[in-house]
Amino acid sequence: AVNGERLWDSLMEMARIGPGIAGGNNRQTLTDADAEGRRLFQSWCEDAGMTMGVDRMGNMFMRHEGEDPTLDPVYIGSHLDTQPTGGKYDGVLGVLAGLEVIRSIRDMEIRTRRPIVVVNWTNEEGTRFAPAMLASGVYAGMHSEDYANTRQDAEGKTFGDELDRIGWRGTEEVGGRPMHAMFEYHIEQGPILEAQGKQIGVVTHGQGLWWLQVTLTGKEAHTGSTPMNMRVNAGLGMARIIEAVHRIAMDHQPNAVGAVGQANVYPNSRNVIPGKAVFTIDFRSPDLQKLTSMRSDLESEAAVIAKKLGLDVEIEPVGHFDPVTFDPELVGTVRTAAERLGYSHMDIVSGAGHDACWINRVAPTVMIMCPCVDGLSHNEAEEISPEWAKAGADVLLQSVLDTAGI
Amino acid sequence: AVNGERLWDSLMEMARIGPGIAGGNNRQTLTDADAEGRRLFQSWCEDAGMTMGVDRMGNMFMRHEGEDPTLDPVYIGSHLDTQPTGGKYDGVLGVLAGLEVIRSIRDMEIRTRRPIVVVNWTNEEGTRFAPAMLASGVYAGMHSEDYANTRQDAEGKTFGDELDRIGWRGTEEVGGRPMHAMFEYHIEQGPILEAQGKQIGVVTHGQGLWWLQVTLTGKEAHTGSTPMNMRVNAGLGMARIIEAVHRIAMDHQPNAVGAVGQANVYPNSRNVIPGKAVFTIDFRSPDLQKLTSMRSDLESEAAVIAKKLGLDVEIEPVGHFDPVTFDPELVGTVRTAAERLGYSHMDIVSGAGHDACWINRVAPTVMIMCPCVDGLSHNEAEEISPEWAKAGADVLLQSVLDTAGI
Ligand SMILES: NC(=O)NCCC(=O)O
Ligand SMILES: NC(=O)NCCC(=O)O
Repeated sequence: AVNGERLWDSLMEMARIGPGIAGGNNRQTLTDADAEGRRLFQSWCEDAGMTMGVDRMGNMFMRHEGEDPTLDPVYIGSHLDTQPTGGKYDGVLGVLAGLEVIRSIRDMEIRTRRPIVVVNWTNEEGTRFAPAMLASGVYAGMHSEDYANTRQDAEGKTFGDELDRIGWRGTEEVGGRPMHAMFEYHIEQGPILEAQGKQIGVVTHGQGLWWLQVTLTGKEAHTGSTPMNMRVNAGLGMARIIEAVHRIAMDHQPNAVGAVGQANVYPNSRNVIPGKAVFTIDFRSPDLQKLTSMRSDLESEAAVIAKKLGLDVEIEPVGHFDPVTFDPELVGTVRTAAERLGYSHMDIVSGAGHDACWINRVAPTVMIMCPCVDGLSHNEAEEISPEWAKAGADVLLQSVLDTAGI
Repeated sequence: AVNGERLWDSLMEMARIGPGIAGGNNRQTLTDADAEGRRLFQSWCEDAGMTMGVDRMGNMFMRHEGEDPTLDPVYIGSHLDTQPTGGKYDGVLGVLAGLEVIRSIRDMEIRTRRPIVVVNWTNEEGTRFAPAMLASGVYAGMHSEDYANTRQDAEGKTFGDELDRIGWRGTEEVGGRPMHAMFEYHIEQGPILEAQGKQIGVVTHGQGLWWLQVTLTGKEAHTGSTPMNMRVNAGLGMARIIEAVHRIAMDHQPNAVGAVGQANVYPNSRNVIPGKAVFTIDFRSPDLQKLTSMRSDLESEAAVIAKKLGLDVEIEPVGHFDPVTFDPELVGTVRTAAERLGYSHMDIVSGAGHDACWINRVAPTVMIMCPCVDGLSHNEAEEISPEWAKAGADVLLQSVLDTAGI
């Protein structure tokens, strides 16, 4: 078993870097705070006898040597960057639990046959530089390095310039490391494990996703002086499409979700009929057919809604990934480890996207989840208990030992 | 008839003060540009032999003496302030047409029995300092002076401080001037006159209004990882209430309108289910019973919608006025004037609120409207033709002469 207190202390110490305003963190990717967090993580790893490699995307690979250095290593990875008003655990738990696995192995004076590499993937959150999971996506060959380097933040600064500025661009080529397996341990970011009273989520699948951005164009007009039959109300069109998104997701139950997260009307004035509405749709399902069908249902319904109201409609796909099936053998390894350690567990589908979803395309991969209070994440109030954190880390240790061999 | 060219030239000259970015104006109330516009108007009026009175709300009363100075004057009033991205005519036309009436009377060397007073009412737009029609509201006893002085703009500056700063606080008591009648000439701000091909709108009524602000509180959660049945989606509640507002307005046809103008969800992020929605409703009708019934229908439907989704709902009334019936005798005067001058005309209800709506509570009042292109207003692209402007000014001159006596 890992040292839960040491893991928790490290989580709390890391959380002092880039503190938020309400108990959480603002340690966005490629900021000075990110650089400081990386240095702290590096020093902890080096104190644990690990050696560092950094690639041209700033991905940090901290290597603990195996009995046989020629064997493909086992990887443990997640991310140290946070949302602007993020929690202390989203991503960080997975990286520091990886470090805790190495510290525990050293305490127990075990040697694993395979090397173990703990990874901090750059820019998982995607808030400062969209899209999310950017550097693991480059690693997996989903994006080019040039694409990543030219992503801009709200101030127009680029990913590439900021990576250089904070001094964390490495020289190693991106991708292609020999990788026997990768484990990602993450908080659930949803309410299922807590509601079911389970300590461990064995993640069998990851949902696929379609992100659509809708622009409706109508006619701005005075709310008081324009008769009902002379209106071209983009806000009303938006309302109908929000309802359609919900109904389409309900029509595809179980195992499908959908909602509108961003909603903006223009000019957004009390006495002006909205002449334009711009809003975003997030559809997800672990079932590719459902995912595809939700998107096409929406496209045809939106066209009908817009036509009836006289609106112009434009639907732009702005994000996509196919559903992920994690490696069945590694899933079995995690399930067995939880079982053996006596932790209550259930199979679960990752609702969110994670670095593991991209890495799964280039190496056998699996995830482990622990509950989070009230399912709350992407929020400074994100909370977990030290016991929950430790349970998942124990399962991670056990699974990694099984996979790396002793 | 008035001198249409002179009226148009004055409109264009005034529009040079506080220019917008797209051909319109940004001459918001109590800004330096407002002060400059007031000085230009004052100088024009004084050149036309008028004398100025200014009250403690900055309302400007420009007096043209009558044959019998003891008779109650006839008033012509509107406003010189504009929206932040406003047009060149909304309000300004009514004030400068009042000036043109005096200039024409002088050209014709007529003396009216009654004095004529041209008024610039302070802060009609209400964009910088809500609510709209603030100083005419104080004049009519609807608000206290203290209420007006303490209204704040977005930067926290108060109406009172800004009125002092630009040097336009007068010493005259607010309200209680002897007033035989008031005329307000305004662009329609809606599409009806243009659609019907009429030059003149004889305004018989003004719609009453309820402005409601709705706050829905649900639970912010990750769109991907929260199952459909565990969501408390404030954005979905907003969509259903936007639809209900529309349906309730349709249920009260004819002579009722309703829409949601401002719509904001929080945190307004692509992959977060909105935990809060704040939006505004604008219901209007010239029929008090319909107006009251729309509000109460909405309140009960919103409660049902919120309950079904598990949302908390709060509905705050933030603006209200009862429907207005303009003075039937003055309405007849305007209709007859249009008829006599050979202008095509129709009776119309003012969809928007105007200073005349408040003044109607303390003196016989009526409005005259001219069409505006495409019904567009509160927009820099607001447009009218010189011919339209002149037609209404001719009707105004004729009506004022009839009322003031010659
Ligand atoms: N874990 C996480 O929230 N990633 C961001 C992308 C997503 O919305 O799933
Ligand atoms: N005329 C005008 O737009 N006044 C502002 C108040 C309203 O919305 O009616």
